[in-house]
Amino acid sequence: MKPIIDLVADLGEGFGAYTIGDDSELLEIVTSANIACGFHAGDPDIMAATVAQCVRRGVGIGAHPSFPDLRGFGRRDMGLTASEVQNDVVYQLGALNGFAAFQGTKVTHLAPHGRLGNLVAVRADYARAVADAAARVDRELIVVAQEGELAVASRAAGLDVAIVGIVDRAYQEDGTLVPRSQPGAVLHDAAEIVERTIRMVVEGKIRCANGADLDIDVDTLLLHGDNAGAVDLARKIRAELISAGVRIAPVAEVMDAKKKVA
Amino acid sequence: MKPIIDLVADLGEGFGAYTIGDDSELLEIVTSANIACGFHAGDPDIMAATVAQCVRRGVGIGAHPSFPDLRGFGRRDMGLTASEVQNDVVYQLGALNGFAAFQGTKVTHLAPHGRLGNLVAVRADYARAVADAAARVDRELIVVAQEGELAVASRAAGLDVAIVGIVDRAYQEDGTLVPRSQPGAVLHDAAEIVERTIRMVVEGKIRCANGADLDIDVDTLLLHGDNAGAVDLARKIRAELISAGVRIAPVAEVMDAKKKVA
Amino acid sequence: MKPIIDLVADLGEGFGAYTIGDDSELLEIVTSANIACGFHAGDPDIMAATVAQCVRRGVGIGAHPSFPDLRGFGRRDMGLTASEVQNDVVYQLGALNGFAAFQGTKVTHLAPHGRLGNLVAVRADYARAVADAAARVDRELIVVAQEGELAVASRAAGLDVAIVGIVDRAYQEDGTLVPRSQPGAVLHDAAEIVERTIRMVVEGKIRCANGADLDIDVDTLLLHGDNAGAVDLARKIRAELISAGVRIAPVAEVMDAKKKVA
Amino acid sequence: MKPIIDLVADLGEGFGAYTIGDDSELLEIVTSANIACGFHAGDPDIMAATVAQCVRRGVGIGAHPSFPDLRGFGRRDMGLTASEVQNDVVYQLGALNGFAAFQGTKVTHLAPHGRLGNLVAVRADYARAVADAAARVDRELIVVAQEGELAVASRAAGLDVAIVGIVDRAYQEDGTLVPRSQPGAVLHDAAEIVERTIRMVVEGKIRCANGADLDIDVDTLLLHGDNAGAVDLARKIRAELISAGVRIAPVAEVMDAKKKVA
Repeated sequence: MKPIIDLVADLGEGFGAYTIGDDSELLEIVTSANIACGFHAGDPDIMAATVAQCVRRGVGIGAHPSFPDLRGFGRRDMGLTASEVQNDVVYQLGALNGFAAFQGTKVTHLAPHGRLGNLVAVRADYARAVADAAARVDRELIVVAQEGELAVASRAAGLDVAIVGIVDRAYQEDGTLVPRSQPGAVLHDAAEIVERTIRMVVEGKIRCANGADLDIDVDTLLLHGDNAGAVDLARKIRAELISAGVRIAPVAEVMDAKKKVA
Repeated sequence: MKPIIDLVADLGEGFGAYTIGDDSELLEIVTSANIACGFHAGDPDIMAATVAQCVRRGVGIGAHPSFPDLRGFGRRDMGLTASEVQNDVVYQLGALNGFAAFQGTKVTHLAPHGRLGNLVAVRADYARAVADAAARVDRELIVVAQEGELAVASRAAGLDVAIVGIVDRAYQEDGTLVPRSQPGAVLHDAAEIVERTIRMVVEGKIRCANGADLDIDVDTLLLHGDNAGAVDLARKIRAELISAGVRIAPVAEVMDAKKKVA
Repeated sequence: MKPIIDLVADLGEGFGAYTIGDDSELLEIVTSANIACGFHAGDPDIMAATVAQCVRRGVGIGAHPSFPDLRGFGRRDMGLTASEVQNDVVYQLGALNGFAAFQGTKVTHLAPHGRLGNLVAVRADYARAVADAAARVDRELIVVAQEGELAVASRAAGLDVAIVGIVDRAYQEDGTLVPRSQPGAVLHDAAEIVERTIRMVVEGKIRCANGADLDIDVDTLLLHGDNAGAVDLARKIRAELISAGVRIAPVAEVMDAKKKVA
Repeated sequence: MKPIIDLVADLGEGFGAYTIGDDSELLEIVTSANIACGFHAGDPDIMAATVAQCVRRGVGIGAHPSFPDLRGFGRRDMGLTASEVQNDVVYQLGALNGFAAFQGTKVTHLAPHGRLGNLVAVRADYARAVADAAARVDRELIVVAQEGELAVASRAAGLDVAIVGIVDRAYQEDGTLVPRSQPGAVLHDAAEIVERTIRMVVEGKIRCANGADLDIDVDTLLLHGDNAGAVDLARKIRAELISAGVRIAPVAEVMDAKKKVA
């Protein structure tokens, strides 16, 4: 099978008069969007506009729920119970689904944001809360995650899990990322990032921090758009993937194509 | 046909540690609930609990969207554009739908709250914004309203409209309420309210402020639960309706029953 | 010297249309108020009204700052840095000072609320952040606290500390409270609470959980008003203190009187 | 007397991770700052940092209170009563005063933001509410405004009023601005703006839209920093004023200097 991958980025992360990131640039590059749902960023007007643009361009719509932390951009642990996390996710997922339904479509994936995203990878209670929220709201939702507690809980809840590759981070041999606190955790050389990414997608292998090769099967790649350099890199990754014969498609298509092969 | 009516009340209007109204009392009386969606009251935890209780008791789930005005309990005109109103309604309706889906059911009606509710009765732009929001999110939603711009716009958008009877307010000959600023606008005598209500449902008539009889065809009655007296009155209305041979059922059932007859 | 004590309660803890506690009852009993500043409860209208009432009755005005957690009523650890805590306290203290200045007076004490109150007793970084905020905004502020990190940091910052007695909690021999998780932590017998309280104020002694007597020098007593029973108890404590010859006065007067003796 | 003028700009208008405007550039140009107080923009961390920078550079600290409208950046009429407006202004002014006190200084002026700023110019009830809030919190506050209801009410409340000149707007013969809806309301030619501004300050005259000369006595000039062009223009205005022999000083100094002459 021809290799296939989804390209995803966080979109709609402005609030009111404020903007973060260049959504119009990113929408020319990605095939899926993690859309802020109003808790760390995004408001109903921005959500409506972002979903409308995704529909116009065939970009897959994903919920990007967060802790309720506008001031902290969702980066803080708010000390919530698992039940509160679950209710917050149901609320945000439902709200985004409203805009998708308004446009005649639906939310196809869910990818927790910021600190919530970090915690569901390691806290089993939060992971189950989020996975059950997703599964009970819509059994067809795809959960986008790295390997970890959320991936485990989502599969247990009967959901498909799309594994996300992080293009600018060093990996450890167990498939987890090198913590940001360690030297070399974040890659900065654009050419190296592009080369690693192509290899990750085409060969299914990535060179780990210790020099060993890790087998990795990613379904989507997370791209950034916070600054001009990030957008350029994202554009380059897309172009090189296409040159390498990789098919780029929304995450739901990626999952379907892989299932047919399997 | 045996007369049929829905009994509806506003529920889930607390926020965090705060409560307003006695939901557990009202849930024994009503067949439908207007559930706050987080903009004037309600938070994800309260919404989850309220929807769960409605499902347990077979109470119809309705969205009660508002202007974003927690501090003013949705009673203030926030100066929004029609487009902002539409996006706010989609967001709130979607969020509540998330909790309904989580419980394996769906939102069956929509009834705007407070100042938004007042304004959609008279502002055609807001009415169209709300009706289109409802129709595009779910064509089967029932809009609960008095006669006015929202009822007109909702029918134009292809939605069923359930006309709500206000049991403690005086009516004018054109079917609108006597404004609160006028003497006699609000009825206080419980016996009189009960008697008028039974007649409204069983005979389809109500005595207007000017003494004339008005033909009225209501599908649901709005009951209050803010204080002990209100709950007692609501309980009495329910008991007297049943004594008078009226069938009490969620608004979707009421609309279906009336369609079969028509 | 005749024994002297301040009686303090949390006031102004409503929000918008919501109320918690019976402020008008409590205002007849207390000599100082911990006033919510909008982060866990309170809004500018409630703050204005509460400060106005305190001025009218000669009740001392205290800031009751919290983590920014309206939904959780300030009971959750929001994961803030010490610097964020300091800025939040400056903001809330300043805002309340605005209302005090509007009434021609000033805030005389500061008592952190809820989880922030718990954490400043044990986290030295938070304690220093709050003490420095208070000291730099107004060197004459009195910090109301139990013995702990905040009391230590406040004295180090040159502020007077008023030690608060908790009337319905069991004490340990080191002067700290028996944790709520342990049996007997909370006292429920009104007569016992009143008797212990009088002894605490008049004799400066309290019987500990282990039976030993603890010397204790309290400047203010924290009273509750969440329910009718609590208000009755508060009223009884006040009456019995007066019967026992104790002078009841705002915390600033208490501190002055004690300084003159010392 | 050598002509003297204050240069003021809106600062601290970010929120959490969001930024608007280039504060560090503007802080090199202006002598006073209108600092957002958390209702339309700004949060305690941003306020603390902005006040600290103003103190470091000798920039006058002004409160920039707004309607509570973070999502609308304070541009919407929230339908508040005059009493609510007053309480919101007291709250915001007090909060900013907290940060000023923390830095050993005080707020010297107040300039309402956005829609509130527009409305206080024409609504006498709002104007009185804001003027009384300012006068009762601090009799020495200077109110920065164009001629209009707020200026009238502030003088009636015993406050000094600093008249603000708008450099990029056309004036009418009565001293008010040409409404934005009319052609030519906003000036775009940088050279023309600079020339008009120098004449306004040095000669006290401005050419009106109808060609006549208007006598005008401004105490401060409002500069913008939303984009690179605006910052360049602000820098040019400052340089040209200095070349023209104008003294540039914080608004309190400007008012003092003018009083001494008068």
